[in-house]
Amino acid sequence: MAPPALAQTDLTALEQALPPEAWAELQALLQTQQYHADLVWTIVAGALVFFMQAGFAMVEAGFTRAKNAANIVLKNLMDFCCGACAFWALGFGLMFGSHVAGFLGTDWFFFTWQQAAEAGSQNDAWPFTFFCFQLVFAATAATIVSGAMAERTRFVAYLIYSIVISAVIYPISGGWAWNGLFADYNGGSAGWLENLGYIDFAGSGVVHLVGGAAAFAGTLVLGPRLGKYSATGEPRAIPGHSLPLSMLGVFILWVGWIGFNAGSTTAAIPDMGWIAFNTYLAGSAGAIGALCTSWAIFTKPDMTFAANGVLAGLVGITAPCATVHPVGAILIGSIAGVLVVISVLFIEGTLKVDDPVGAVSVHGVCGAWGVIAAGIPWFAHAEAGVSWQILPVQVLGVIALGGWSFVSCLVLFLILRGTIGLRVSAEEELAGLDIGEHGNIAYPDFVSASSELER
Amino acid sequence: MAPPALAQTDLTALEQALPPEAWAELQALLQTQQYHADLVWTIVAGALVFFMQAGFAMVEAGFTRAKNAANIVLKNLMDFCCGACAFWALGFGLMFGSHVAGFLGTDWFFFTWQQAAEAGSQNDAWPFTFFCFQLVFAATAATIVSGAMAERTRFVAYLIYSIVISAVIYPISGGWAWNGLFADYNGGSAGWLENLGYIDFAGSGVVHLVGGAAAFAGTLVLGPRLGKYSATGEPRAIPGHSLPLSMLGVFILWVGWIGFNAGSTTAAIPDMGWIAFNTYLAGSAGAIGALCTSWAIFTKPDMTFAANGVLAGLVGITAPCATVHPVGAILIGSIAGVLVVISVLFIEGTLKVDDPVGAVSVHGVCGAWGVIAAGIPWFAHAEAGVSWQILPVQVLGVIALGGWSFVSCLVLFLILRGTIGLRVSAEEELAGLDIGEHGNIAYPDFVSASSELER
Amino acid sequence: MAPPALAQTDLTALEQALPPEAWAELQALLQTQQYHADLVWTIVAGALVFFMQAGFAMVEAGFTRAKNAANIVLKNLMDFCCGACAFWALGFGLMFGSHVAGFLGTDWFFFTWQQAAEAGSQNDAWPFTFFCFQLVFAATAATIVSGAMAERTRFVAYLIYSIVISAVIYPISGGWAWNGLFADYNGGSAGWLENLGYIDFAGSGVVHLVGGAAAFAGTLVLGPRLGKYSATGEPRAIPGHSLPLSMLGVFILWVGWIGFNAGSTTAAIPDMGWIAFNTYLAGSAGAIGALCTSWAIFTKPDMTFAANGVLAGLVGITAPCATVHPVGAILIGSIAGVLVVISVLFIEGTLKVDDPVGAVSVHGVCGAWGVIAAGIPWFAHAEAGVSWQILPVQVLGVIALGGWSFVSCLVLFLILRGTIGLRVSAEEELAGLDIGEHGNIAYPDFVSASSELER
Repeated sequence: MAPPALAQTDLTALEQALPPEAWAELQALLQTQQYHADLVWTIVAGALVFFMQAGFAMVEAGFTRAKNAANIVLKNLMDFCCGACAFWALGFGLMFGSHVAGFLGTDWFFFTWQQAAEAGSQNDAWPFTFFCFQLVFAATAATIVSGAMAERTRFVAYLIYSIVISAVIYPISGGWAWNGLFADYNGGSAGWLENLGYIDFAGSGVVHLVGGAAAFAGTLVLGPRLGKYSATGEPRAIPGHSLPLSMLGVFILWVGWIGFNAGSTTAAIPDMGWIAFNTYLAGSAGAIGALCTSWAIFTKPDMTFAANGVLAGLVGITAPCATVHPVGAILIGSIAGVLVVISVLFIEGTLKVDDPVGAVSVHGVCGAWGVIAAGIPWFAHAEAGVSWQILPVQVLGVIALGGWSFVSCLVLFLILRGTIGLRVSAEEELAGLDIGEHGNIAYPDFVSASSELER
Repeated sequence: MAPPALAQTDLTALEQALPPEAWAELQALLQTQQYHADLVWTIVAGALVFFMQAGFAMVEAGFTRAKNAANIVLKNLMDFCCGACAFWALGFGLMFGSHVAGFLGTDWFFFTWQQAAEAGSQNDAWPFTFFCFQLVFAATAATIVSGAMAERTRFVAYLIYSIVISAVIYPISGGWAWNGLFADYNGGSAGWLENLGYIDFAGSGVVHLVGGAAAFAGTLVLGPRLGKYSATGEPRAIPGHSLPLSMLGVFILWVGWIGFNAGSTTAAIPDMGWIAFNTYLAGSAGAIGALCTSWAIFTKPDMTFAANGVLAGLVGITAPCATVHPVGAILIGSIAGVLVVISVLFIEGTLKVDDPVGAVSVHGVCGAWGVIAAGIPWFAHAEAGVSWQILPVQVLGVIALGGWSFVSCLVLFLILRGTIGLRVSAEEELAGLDIGEHGNIAYPDFVSASSELER
Repeated sequence: MAPPALAQTDLTALEQALPPEAWAELQALLQTQQYHADLVWTIVAGALVFFMQAGFAMVEAGFTRAKNAANIVLKNLMDFCCGACAFWALGFGLMFGSHVAGFLGTDWFFFTWQQAAEAGSQNDAWPFTFFCFQLVFAATAATIVSGAMAERTRFVAYLIYSIVISAVIYPISGGWAWNGLFADYNGGSAGWLENLGYIDFAGSGVVHLVGGAAAFAGTLVLGPRLGKYSATGEPRAIPGHSLPLSMLGVFILWVGWIGFNAGSTTAAIPDMGWIAFNTYLAGSAGAIGALCTSWAIFTKPDMTFAANGVLAGLVGITAPCATVHPVGAILIGSIAGVLVVISVLFIEGTLKVDDPVGAVSVHGVCGAWGVIAAGIPWFAHAEAGVSWQILPVQVLGVIALGGWSFVSCLVLFLILRGTIGLRVSAEEELAGLDIGEHGNIAYPDFVSASSELER
């Protein structure tokens, strides 16, 4: 890692008091101290982000039916495991390797000990640490898709597309915005979006919009679950089988999001403080916005919308978390909470697209909102330097990231559908994917209340 | 934040070896390093404390019935979300703003970027970081109440009282003991209790006793659940619907408690070490104490008492965690474990007060015990400087904090009962609050075993 | 703690630029900064490892039957609580006290404030911090046993043997490999295995093999669950009652393992980076290895094997995590994933030993594999200095640690069986241990689907 700045204060008296070599050594000593704190923070924050995999698993399993619960949690596990190997082999290099014209990384494939040793000093742990943090981000993007395509996707097709997303689709667009984060190790290259001044601090666009757009492509190609729509096209509720597990997942995701946002400093610096602050407030405001909106529409405060409202607020604040003031964070979160309810109803009722857990609305729509919000100076704090000139870049970012992910995933899912097949048989879907795909039963000790749809 | 002390060792030779300006610059550099480590620790510890919200949700949901599970986890979510906005607008200022006569804060309302920037140096993140840590503490106090009032409280009344507790009741008494923690930013003010020498390092009194006393007021005003007492006043067991989820919650709370206690240093200093040590031992001793007591009384070791015994031990060690020696920690935890069993039986059987999860005993009774224990020199380590003179102050703290919370909450609950209504209808209570309040079903895929009480 | 090295770079110019006393003071200042970062890291990593207790509880409860769920989670709680007190009184001293001939610690029993104060400087928190980290490791070893002996062990016998393991058996063999980690406080002593150059960075052998060998002894003495084997000796599947809870447990364990492995530096140093990296990759490779193996054998990808595959990969990388390169980590994890499937089938089908959660295979077999793998130079990175000479020492470590644990636990379990009794009655086993041992019902609100075996 490049030597971090020691302090913003004037150091000339100290420099002049020491011989040049002694001053250089003192600087190195203090930089080492800072480096060690940075490593601790980045590894801990990365572990919190990794914990979000458990959160996604619990949210998705809880919001779907018991007969598919083992399938869903296994998919959440295996997309990380396969994605990790794919990101190690290919994705990390495409995203953070030396960029060709700001579009595509060209080295750091099959990350080896030698590469890290050559890039920095002998015992430089930064590439490893940075890899870990970026790996858990890539896994987040991949796992978003699984919720939208739950309860009807073939397991083997799922494995293939989650590998392709982790290895190719997410890294390519991710590099456009974040390649420069690894500039000390890739010859100083940077992505075209970040060169334009694009603001996406922790990834409302890079991670969530990309994941949400992929999820949207997936649900379009896959079609709705059996029984989701009546003969006249009216959507029917298919309630999730364990709301407490879902809420546990929401809390786990929120805890992980502290690492996701504040950890994106990848350094132990003051910015962590207001990022965490904004993350708590925006998540809270998102839940309130969604709860009130659902209360107004349905006359009762709905637990599932409040849960998705938290996630909406958190997705919304992810891009602007470092640059907004407290009121900005509350407004961004509240608006995301309102948006997610409207979007869920619109996608389900008007578009007739079946997204079992609302992933497209939470991650896609609110991801786009977060990117836009980061470009609105009203929300920005005094030192952020956000002007209206940045807003068109943010809009361009939404189009580029969302468009790339949607189109490339659409192609991917169409190929899968036309070759090995993307969807399980109707019999298997009715019986549940746990038995059909895995030979497992998630809850053998409880008597199942089969829904009317299945009789 | 005020420049932290650099080290306890003598630094005169170093000071004399450098010109004054150079020495000042070197001190600033090293203070910045320490500051960055403090920020990392406080943010990570705060995230662990926030995770306790998930722990409370799982404990409370698991120890109550399936028909109310969605309601309970939604309440646990929304008390944090509403409480966060209320604490931002009002509570933080009442607790940590410049104090009037040690009783009430008067500034830092609607926490803004400008306030933080004016209070410290330009990029000072400490107020934001400190806010995050205090927010998750306030949320803990608020959420304690929900368990005691579970399975019969109207959702809208719950939202209102959790906002009032987070915005007004908890912050006022909290400021009496902890206002001085923010002295660098509130003109050096401090609360009247801390001025007396009151010891409550991580909040057995400030957080748990206040929460427990509020819970007691709530259960008194609310009355017992339908079917809890027979016509002759005999209590009947209403078993919780998922003991594994409850135990998961206990483990999550314990993990969070490491952040709660050791994080209350809000600085990366050695004290973290023995605080964590005492927290592990006291929680363990609490479980053993409660398990043995329940074993002796009921002839079998009861899982629910062991679970509450952990929490009792942890509540008990919260005030004295920084000042006691290992044997002190074990004794404090063991006694808390015995106390919680006796208290649960006394409150349920003698007082005829229905507290579904034992929150009054765990947080109220053991919170008071923790405050008292912090004033007993037998438990204190050699450097703590605890003398018998402090014990009366501790007793005064119990009376002041518990009395304030109980009386103000009693008034609050009586007002709510007399206006919008505090309790759901008998029909709704029998059918479950999930359907009546939210239109949700927590476990639609499983066949419910309705308890005999409901038939 | 011994003053940590400040930096690998040359500091002579700085040393010469300052008077000797000033240089000494500057060194002390910087060492204090490093020490504070080390404390933060070790406490946070310890909290993550402690969280693994929740992971074990969820994995074990989810993979066994609902009628024993309260018993299992209570055992997971109480083995930590009793083990903590036992490790405080006896185990820590046996493991880390001044060693007699590299075999047995002789002081630091009943860890007191005075011992810590005398050992280091006045406010030295290191012994407390180190104790916390080692305590959560000891608890891991003890809790491994509970899964293998689930669903048929008397609760009181369980408490006794988990105390003996935490207090005596684990600490004695642990000291052979790790006593020197506390050399600054035990007069510079070290264990005989570490003196031979034995590599076991985070405890594939010390923790997992020891736990797995104890589990194997336990299952042998205890015998299989009723109905596990047909009259002709064919094993029957007894499916676990909640696969989502099991998967939650796996994720929690993995998060905790970042603390387990990277935290074993007990210092904020660069090595954390590649250790975390190797831990993510090996766990992923383990899942892939096990999933593919189970897919090939059973024609469907089995969720339970994938879950155990993650744990197998993590157990395998625990010893070599600091010394292997990325490809080494992937290979070690993959092989562990294959091994665990074969081992589970072999133990169940050929040995006719009933291990409900596969603990012997995951921890015992893959623990041994991890120790061996740490001695294979092919996997080691350029700076690790691993030569083929070390492999015999690793083999000796497997024999010594595994043999000690197996034999001593065999004696312990035989004594328990012959005195107070190790196994519940057949009636109690059929009805479930929750009712028989505790008077609890884990899921009273759901209708139970009794397995055919019980009718």
